[in-house]
Amino acid sequence: MAGSAQGAAEGAADLSDETNDKSDLFDRLTGLMAPRSVAVIGASANAQGWSGGAVPVLRRLGYRGKIFPVNPKYEELNGLRCYPSVSAIPEPVDAALMFVPQRVLPGILEECGQKGVRGAVILASGFSETGEEGRKLEETLREVANRNRIAICGPNCLGLANLDSGFMGLTAATFPEDMSAGHTALISQSGQLLMVMLSRAHDQGVHMRYLVSTGNELNVEAADYARWALEDPEIRSVCMALEGLRSPDRFLDLAKRAREVEKPLIVLKLGRSQRAARTALAHTGKMAGAFRTYEAVFRQNNIVSVDDPLELADVAALFEKCPAPHGERISVVTFSGGWSGVMADQSEALGLPMADFTGETVEKLRPLLDFTPPVNPLDLSGNVNNHPERWGAALEAVLADANTDIMVVFIHQVREAWRGRLIEPVLELAKTAGKPIVIVYDGGKIVEPGWDFLAADKSLPIYRGSQQMLKALKRFVEYHKRKSASQGDSDWKLLDIEAGADETVEKLLAASGRSLSEHAAKEALKSYGLPMVGETLVRIEADALSAAEEIGYPVVMKGLADGMEHKSEAGLVRLNLADADAVRTAFADLSGKIDGYKLGDAPAACLVQKMVTGGVEAILGMQNDPDFGPMILLGVGGVMTELMNDVALRRAPLSQADVAEMIDETRLSQLLEGYRGAERADRAALEEAVLRLSAFAVAHADSIDSIDINPLIVLPQGEGCIAVDALIIKPENQA
Amino acid sequence: MAGSAQGAAEGAADLSDETNDKSDLFDRLTGLMAPRSVAVIGASANAQGWSGGAVPVLRRLGYRGKIFPVNPKYEELNGLRCYPSVSAIPEPVDAALMFVPQRVLPGILEECGQKGVRGAVILASGFSETGEEGRKLEETLREVANRNRIAICGPNCLGLANLDSGFMGLTAATFPEDMSAGHTALISQSGQLLMVMLSRAHDQGVHMRYLVSTGNELNVEAADYARWALEDPEIRSVCMALEGLRSPDRFLDLAKRAREVEKPLIVLKLGRSQRAARTALAHTGKMAGAFRTYEAVFRQNNIVSVDDPLELADVAALFEKCPAPHGERISVVTFSGGWSGVMADQSEALGLPMADFTGETVEKLRPLLDFTPPVNPLDLSGNVNNHPERWGAALEAVLADANTDIMVVFIHQVREAWRGRLIEPVLELAKTAGKPIVIVYDGGKIVEPGWDFLAADKSLPIYRGSQQMLKALKRFVEYHKRKSASQGDSDWKLLDIEAGADETVEKLLAASGRSLSEHAAKEALKSYGLPMVGETLVRIEADALSAAEEIGYPVVMKGLADGMEHKSEAGLVRLNLADADAVRTAFADLSGKIDGYKLGDAPAACLVQKMVTGGVEAILGMQNDPDFGPMILLGVGGVMTELMNDVALRRAPLSQADVAEMIDETRLSQLLEGYRGAERADRAALEEAVLRLSAFAVAHADSIDSIDINPLIVLPQGEGCIAVDALIIKPENQA
Repeated sequence: MAGSAQGAAEGAADLSDETNDKSDLFDRLTGLMAPRSVAVIGASANAQGWSGGAVPVLRRLGYRGKIFPVNPKYEELNGLRCYPSVSAIPEPVDAALMFVPQRVLPGILEECGQKGVRGAVILASGFSETGEEGRKLEETLREVANRNRIAICGPNCLGLANLDSGFMGLTAATFPEDMSAGHTALISQSGQLLMVMLSRAHDQGVHMRYLVSTGNELNVEAADYARWALEDPEIRSVCMALEGLRSPDRFLDLAKRAREVEKPLIVLKLGRSQRAARTALAHTGKMAGAFRTYEAVFRQNNIVSVDDPLELADVAALFEKCPAPHGERISVVTFSGGWSGVMADQSEALGLPMADFTGETVEKLRPLLDFTPPVNPLDLSGNVNNHPERWGAALEAVLADANTDIMVVFIHQVREAWRGRLIEPVLELAKTAGKPIVIVYDGGKIVEPGWDFLAADKSLPIYRGSQQMLKALKRFVEYHKRKSASQGDSDWKLLDIEAGADETVEKLLAASGRSLSEHAAKEALKSYGLPMVGETLVRIEADALSAAEEIGYPVVMKGLADGMEHKSEAGLVRLNLADADAVRTAFADLSGKIDGYKLGDAPAACLVQKMVTGGVEAILGMQNDPDFGPMILLGVGGVMTELMNDVALRRAPLSQADVAEMIDETRLSQLLEGYRGAERADRAALEEAVLRLSAFAVAHADSIDSIDINPLIVLPQGEGCIAVDALIIKPENQA
Repeated sequence: MAGSAQGAAEGAADLSDETNDKSDLFDRLTGLMAPRSVAVIGASANAQGWSGGAVPVLRRLGYRGKIFPVNPKYEELNGLRCYPSVSAIPEPVDAALMFVPQRVLPGILEECGQKGVRGAVILASGFSETGEEGRKLEETLREVANRNRIAICGPNCLGLANLDSGFMGLTAATFPEDMSAGHTALISQSGQLLMVMLSRAHDQGVHMRYLVSTGNELNVEAADYARWALEDPEIRSVCMALEGLRSPDRFLDLAKRAREVEKPLIVLKLGRSQRAARTALAHTGKMAGAFRTYEAVFRQNNIVSVDDPLELADVAALFEKCPAPHGERISVVTFSGGWSGVMADQSEALGLPMADFTGETVEKLRPLLDFTPPVNPLDLSGNVNNHPERWGAALEAVLADANTDIMVVFIHQVREAWRGRLIEPVLELAKTAGKPIVIVYDGGKIVEPGWDFLAADKSLPIYRGSQQMLKALKRFVEYHKRKSASQGDSDWKLLDIEAGADETVEKLLAASGRSLSEHAAKEALKSYGLPMVGETLVRIEADALSAAEEIGYPVVMKGLADGMEHKSEAGLVRLNLADADAVRTAFADLSGKIDGYKLGDAPAACLVQKMVTGGVEAILGMQNDPDFGPMILLGVGGVMTELMNDVALRRAPLSQADVAEMIDETRLSQLLEGYRGAERADRAALEEAVLRLSAFAVAHADSIDSIDINPLIVLPQGEGCIAVDALIIKPENQA
């Protein structure tokens, strides 16, 4: 798989490849992310610049390690001894912050290596992002860093921070006031987004523990930082803003590890639309689109995918502050009928079910209500102002309800004197709730002190609007649902693939141009046990007639010729030929059209096939993604394919659970069950065919660009499925 | 049409009906909304309560009219003479604020009437929302108010305000600090939502001019206030939060007027999910769902529909502060690559096109950029810090670009000293822009002073996030697009409907039970010129055979019997009968199944029909909505109807433009064009059929609950369309 990432050389991040030792990278990252000592190289007395600000910031945040300013110009800086060089420092140095000109960087990095420095932060820009010269400079730097086994954050970044130890190697125009550590890691390929997300999160009471702006990713990638942060027991979720992936494999390893340690990755994928421009040759590719690949990989790995930078904080708040929910039913407590309506509408629109209160709860609630009904969403009405005790009692009753999995509390537009009376009972309940409690606090700046109080308390997730909250809640609930659902391993190796199948496939591929003929494509797929319609390739009328006789009428005839792959459009398909006469006419007609064309090395030919009727038409395909390799596509097939555009995508190899999910994700599930009185179709046979294509795609990923089987007809239960058309396209460079 | 609204009697708001004079209502509303003088009845010295606060608030806001406190207990209040009763006031009184107990309200209202008071605000609750007793009290109040021709705001509401004149009859726990008037009216059936929306809007620099909490809508409805506000030349948009409509007709009148004066209505419809519970008998109804009715009416009337209370302010900001855009292409200026990516992705996802810069712009931009490309979205990079003059120059170049219809500027995460340098050039450009300029200002509380500066300036719409902004922008752009698109009047009356058609229909309806038989339904629809498949009703084999002979083979046969309307499921359909033998077999078989059943007053029977093949299958239907009357549904039909669930809905009578839009909204448009090599279908014939059904539905709205024509087969161009199955269901009370 080729690497792809923002403006840098391919195969850039090769620290782990070179050392071939992942634990070594992990150690170096510990040196970079949690150093026991740090050298500030190029520290200065200029309080306006980053070089002068770094040491004071480290001290202000109470950095727990040792600080060594390095600059031959000074004897002392900020009350600390200043060293003329890294080598002159008498103690071990874990990390270095670099505030030196580009041209001296390689030399100083070399010196750092000799000193045993494990990680360095290089903020400077002017590298691969600026053109050829910068790219060369970056190559030099990478060579030095890798040889000296130094993990580099940057260059061309804002740096990183460990708010737990107070290690601050991050430079930005503004910071939130309270930089105390929370339980979330935030790793971003965009520095500006990092700072916006940080501020927004802090305003919501979601504090970060680790912050990384990864920049050009010289030899450490976003996935590496995330992988490191996952191991910290204090970390509850890892948020990432990704523009591209240099090493999709490292990202997949990260995803695997996140599932093992049961911590969510929350990812904002940027550059969706640029990538969407990549269009593939084959039909399937056109529909898949490249962001769909990421979506598929995210879904398959239970990665929480968000659409907006601000949403990262909304979702992280739930993972940081809430226990796992037992289910997805929400109960709402408010004192506004309007908000009740909004909540009911919006939760239905998002597919989040509302709890039905138990009879016991209804009895508890009745005396607390004047004329509003004891139903969910619960509206205590403005009368709660006259009966403050009702608020706490209602919250307690609703939270205790066996049907309440998650409780949402609305607090809005209250005068100052009332804030405590409304907020405090919620915070009190939260201490022993054992269920997620979420607050929507709304009303604008005029009631902002209440918001600030909740944010500073940090114990509950808080939102300014119901839609924002529900969107985050939906992702939180989905993560937990998918986490508890069994996610089978890839068991495709259990399929019984005949010996010699791979040789057959390679031969067929080698003998073809960029597109395999329908017949050759089917031969290749058949060798992997994919059921293909009975067919014979013929070049003279007599053969056509005897083939039809053998196959049994009615038959289909098709003209096969190189360069005429779109057979329907070229008028090369004849359906439902009922007798010998029809075959004769069709043969004459098709022969006229393909006369003079080639099919590989031989002359063009006709295909005589069994006419298959009935059944459910599926499309099954593969597309080789430049990042993630073979992706399998399954959906509603036949003539409706493009009109319905209803397909599911997953990365091969697939597990049986993946295949089941793909079917259920599309309208295929309804069709297979026997839509509108049709017979139930052979879903098991379809599942097996998909697993076989997955195995085929993995085995031949290097020599195939895309596969398109459409339609794959799923026959009634017990009768299997059968492919009646297939197309295989080789990569451009192998055509 | 029956009224429907939150917890109040039907036909409640009948002020205009009684006087039968809309301008009279308008005058009374002027008295209520813009009074030259106001009596505060029950004014008190208790500064903690509303009765004591009203007069001081009026004076603090600088109310331009005269204030008359009324309370026999005081000679003077707040420095004003206090009167013992309304009648004792020596000058005319336009409006009254009522702070008196429920039981004395009718008497005081009577007195107000004698005094010539035109409008009164009744905040008190305890009326129809509490049960039977309250309902009676409300009826009494309504009788007195209507007889005295007084427009009532409330009861059970927060009141209303006119921030232009300083007339404040609104009570709430908190208010924004700056209550100066803007150009937007906000009318809400929920009081709590009103206040939340008000605060949020003010925080964004969107100030309201009129605010109304409508409460129980004794004799003035939300639509009436909106209708009144539309006429104010200072009003640029009217925002409404609606739970239900008492008089759909008044709402439709309002919508019509809004289009005439070219001002948008921005509506949040609440209670979508409760209404969604209403399910209809017929197939079409099931798919329509009740909120879809509102959506259809909103769309047909170019009403801007929003999903969230906070979105009202987001959208209103654009209408208040921006000129109409010339097109929909947006250009983005930022100094973050990350935000550029976010904007490109999100605008593509929402279907908002990005402008391509002209060559001229590219040349202007090149010298302003170090290494980022001169493309949209434009990333000036952090280097803008070192070259502040680049910011203004880039903004100017992008705004001037002929392809820029709307300019979006990102400002985020800047240190205080820089704020002016970034914000001021934008405000300067906005003065003469002539194009919408929108600011996304992000970065959290740490950069809040910049936000406050922009909000106080009020000249540009500002947003905290890109997704929030784009969602609002999309609605703004759609409104203007639809406004400039020609929206033909209903021209269905031009259809040539045969004389006596209505009598035929009424006879068929009268002769049927709740469901008309397929044959009767077709007869009814045929009388309106809807093309129906040739068919004959038969009860003996010989008739079946001669009918088939006359129609021409192949034919279809169906068994018709009361209670067996789902013919396919009951096995009562035989397709593709090719000869007399097949007809004989089918007749015998069907006869066996329907033997002993009735069809209206006669025995069950068989239908012999022409077998229609090919063409595009549509579903065409009508459902009588309790609020809006006959709604027409059109979409992809045949066996795929439920699977695709791809239908458009509009309120009858339809214009030709409506019908064209309905087709284009669904995949029918693709199918009609000749999907996958099929012949182009007769779209004009389909359009005419839809218009005929619309005419039919309007003429017989009172006696029909739903109509379902599926499939309606649209034949190749020039060959028309033909309905092969039809179902008509009467209202429950007429069965």
